[in-house]
Amino acid sequence: MAEEVTDHASEIARKSAEIERLEQEIADHRKALGQGLAPSPFAPARFPDLPQVAGVQFAAAAAGVRYRTGRLDVMLARLAPGSVMAGVFTRSSTRSAPVLWCEAQLRALGGAPAPEGLAVIVNAGNSNAFTGENGVQAVERVTTECGAALGIPAGNVLMASTGVIGEKLPAEKITARLFELRDALDGGAVESAARAIMTTDTFPKGAGTVVDLGGTSVNIAGFAKGSGMIAPDMATMLAFVFTNAAVDGALLQRMTAELADLTFNAATVDGDTSTSDTLLIGASWASGMEPIQSAGDPRYPVFREALHGVLRDLAIQVVKDGEGASKFATITVTGAEDDRAARRIGLAIANSPLVKTALAGEDANWGRIVMAVGKSGEKADRDLLTIRFGDILVAEKGWVAAGYTENAGAAYMKRAELEISVDVGIGEGRATVWTCDLTHGYISINADYRS
Amino acid sequence: MAEEVTDHASEIARKSAEIERLEQEIADHRKALGQGLAPSPFAPARFPDLPQVAGVQFAAAAAGVRYRTGRLDVMLARLAPGSVMAGVFTRSSTRSAPVLWCEAQLRALGGAPAPEGLAVIVNAGNSNAFTGENGVQAVERVTTECGAALGIPAGNVLMASTGVIGEKLPAEKITARLFELRDALDGGAVESAARAIMTTDTFPKGAGTVVDLGGTSVNIAGFAKGSGMIAPDMATMLAFVFTNAAVDGALLQRMTAELADLTFNAATVDGDTSTSDTLLIGASWASGMEPIQSAGDPRYPVFREALHGVLRDLAIQVVKDGEGASKFATITVTGAEDDRAARRIGLAIANSPLVKTALAGEDANWGRIVMAVGKSGEKADRDLLTIRFGDILVAEKGWVAAGYTENAGAAYMKRAELEISVDVGIGEGRATVWTCDLTHGYISINADYRS
Repeated sequence: MAEEVTDHASEIARKSAEIERLEQEIADHRKALGQGLAPSPFAPARFPDLPQVAGVQFAAAAAGVRYRTGRLDVMLARLAPGSVMAGVFTRSSTRSAPVLWCEAQLRALGGAPAPEGLAVIVNAGNSNAFTGENGVQAVERVTTECGAALGIPAGNVLMASTGVIGEKLPAEKITARLFELRDALDGGAVESAARAIMTTDTFPKGAGTVVDLGGTSVNIAGFAKGSGMIAPDMATMLAFVFTNAAVDGALLQRMTAELADLTFNAATVDGDTSTSDTLLIGASWASGMEPIQSAGDPRYPVFREALHGVLRDLAIQVVKDGEGASKFATITVTGAEDDRAARRIGLAIANSPLVKTALAGEDANWGRIVMAVGKSGEKADRDLLTIRFGDILVAEKGWVAAGYTENAGAAYMKRAELEISVDVGIGEGRATVWTCDLTHGYISINADYRS
Repeated sequence: MAEEVTDHASEIARKSAEIERLEQEIADHRKALGQGLAPSPFAPARFPDLPQVAGVQFAAAAAGVRYRTGRLDVMLARLAPGSVMAGVFTRSSTRSAPVLWCEAQLRALGGAPAPEGLAVIVNAGNSNAFTGENGVQAVERVTTECGAALGIPAGNVLMASTGVIGEKLPAEKITARLFELRDALDGGAVESAARAIMTTDTFPKGAGTVVDLGGTSVNIAGFAKGSGMIAPDMATMLAFVFTNAAVDGALLQRMTAELADLTFNAATVDGDTSTSDTLLIGASWASGMEPIQSAGDPRYPVFREALHGVLRDLAIQVVKDGEGASKFATITVTGAEDDRAARRIGLAIANSPLVKTALAGEDANWGRIVMAVGKSGEKADRDLLTIRFGDILVAEKGWVAAGYTENAGAAYMKRAELEISVDVGIGEGRATVWTCDLTHGYISINADYRS
């Protein structure tokens, strides 16, 4: 037996070396593909057709900020005079220079329509985070020169950056492209804009809708990038959404903050928080409708729900393109003490490495969900908990459900899109969060690819 | 070029299938080895020599709770009449039946010396968590019959269980071994006791020391298991430490709670919290010393420091045997607002999947540490942060340090044991936490091994 054990052990060692060699080969192949990663199994066949938003134009350029291969890496969006802009940013205490800039400018604009119009400039490849005084200067240079090229004040130019942390942003590579970008501005160029902000994303993410607001047909369209919640030299979450609706700026800001909590802040890949996460929502007012000035306006909930749908769509796409993701899970928590508690329980499940590896392994391991509920710090009672996988009742009354079979659970877990429901059984709080599985792919992307 | 890309892509697909096949083979080999995993690179050559603790005896048996192969899976410890016991347990709201039992019994004992003595019975393979009324009955049956076998009240028998969640604990398999266990009780059997509580642990963990308390030589010895912070059908953290020192029960309880925060609660593998984590510290008073009755006793800090060392040693061993661990990192945070803030910042770094994958990839990615500090929710100022790898100054004043080179960072990261220091630069708070890296091995253990 001892000899047999030694045989197995050396066999294991040989196989492990073999895997390492194979993985290095795969990494080399991927590098040969220009850092391209295998596309997410959830990647759509093509970019969606988005409604064009009057008063908003886009352009993209290959500035070579980090990537050498002529890949699009700078995006400019221009909003017509009279536009308003709302934003929600990372809560990180080590926020990047562009985030600090956006926060300051939005505060200064105060939600009032900008008579000269607004702009958003975004680069991929360098996050301009933890770059000290240099970072501040780079933002000032890009926004000043961009404002000059467009004929608007620098303070009306918002900026977002994603990519490596701690390296000086080569601002001159971006500013060298400003006139090219300005001249290329086009209301229909949203797909290249969406492509230009990608980092480890395996597909560009767009979403839009058309909604009737009291007789005026209004368009909403936007795009996002993600992949990991963050990976400093890799991914961060950015989203830019535009509409021709006329909505009071302060009201739009309030709506943006509320909807961010229900969408992007309910989406998690690895629970890590970027220094750069940015959501900007710009309204050009170009639809000609009477502006929505208060939440009491009957058009307000209609617009809010339409915008909610677009943000949710983008947030779900971000999770589906999560680094290494092979499964997408919607986690619905009901019966919690309140909505906030439901959300924290949902995120405890969604971020648990043990839950996420169980999803990867197609293991109907409901015990790990019980564990995650328990660790959330929120009120829960083991004996009142109900867990369902899709329509399958898995556990209730402090134990496995009477009719549950491991076969039923195992069959369900083979699906690519999973629905996990947890009823806490003690209140009315509810929340939905989205997550993906934790796979060898995540480790390969984040450990094996050196910066 | 397009054709070349297709070639690479199909090559990648083939290689991926190959890896999957190889990993299945490795999993099969490991199963053939009786669930044995490749030992941690930090596994010591042999179990340490521990001082024998007068008034405490151990026995272990193979009860077949879950493992079939005659592997030790039940441990009994008996403490002499007059012993006291202190405990700290998981804060999970879905605590297991044995944890609830221990909490209730320790409350009832109230720290007073138990005239009949005490016992601890532990099984591996089944955590008896989320097992409803059945779970309560199983604990009652085991502790009642164990008490009867030892001639002590059931309430003096503490219990801990680790293993799969949600399956009925076969209490009868444990009770069938009680007389065998009682008859085997032996003051020197600590190594088999340490082995009997293992699950996915790759080595048994023991630590001990001898300390002079005012002229009396006193022994402390204990053992622990871990691996993941939890994995419901795998690992949980249990630790049992014994001493012949005479310490007032309430004082011992206070010390245990304080030291747990500095040791086991500062050790993290995956940030998941077990339903079963249990730390019990028993004092037999058999040394004959005058009891320590207050924190003002000059022997109190001496004993506390000795106990602290034993608990720290065990906690570090647990992290070094973390599932899939190839790196061990000590993270020291100084200059935080207070100690609590320092601890939260330390755990944010220690639990970040992106930091942990960077450790695995030997990537000196200090940007991910900045990110983790930022997400901790604690007060920090980007420009006051200082980061060191060992003695290497990596980042300060909001940017990479002037003398830092990527080569120096890369060379440092090749070490198996790493020291990462973060000075927040705003206060006096400090904390040390321990973590391991996040590797393909973690994914394999938790995703590829189905329950």
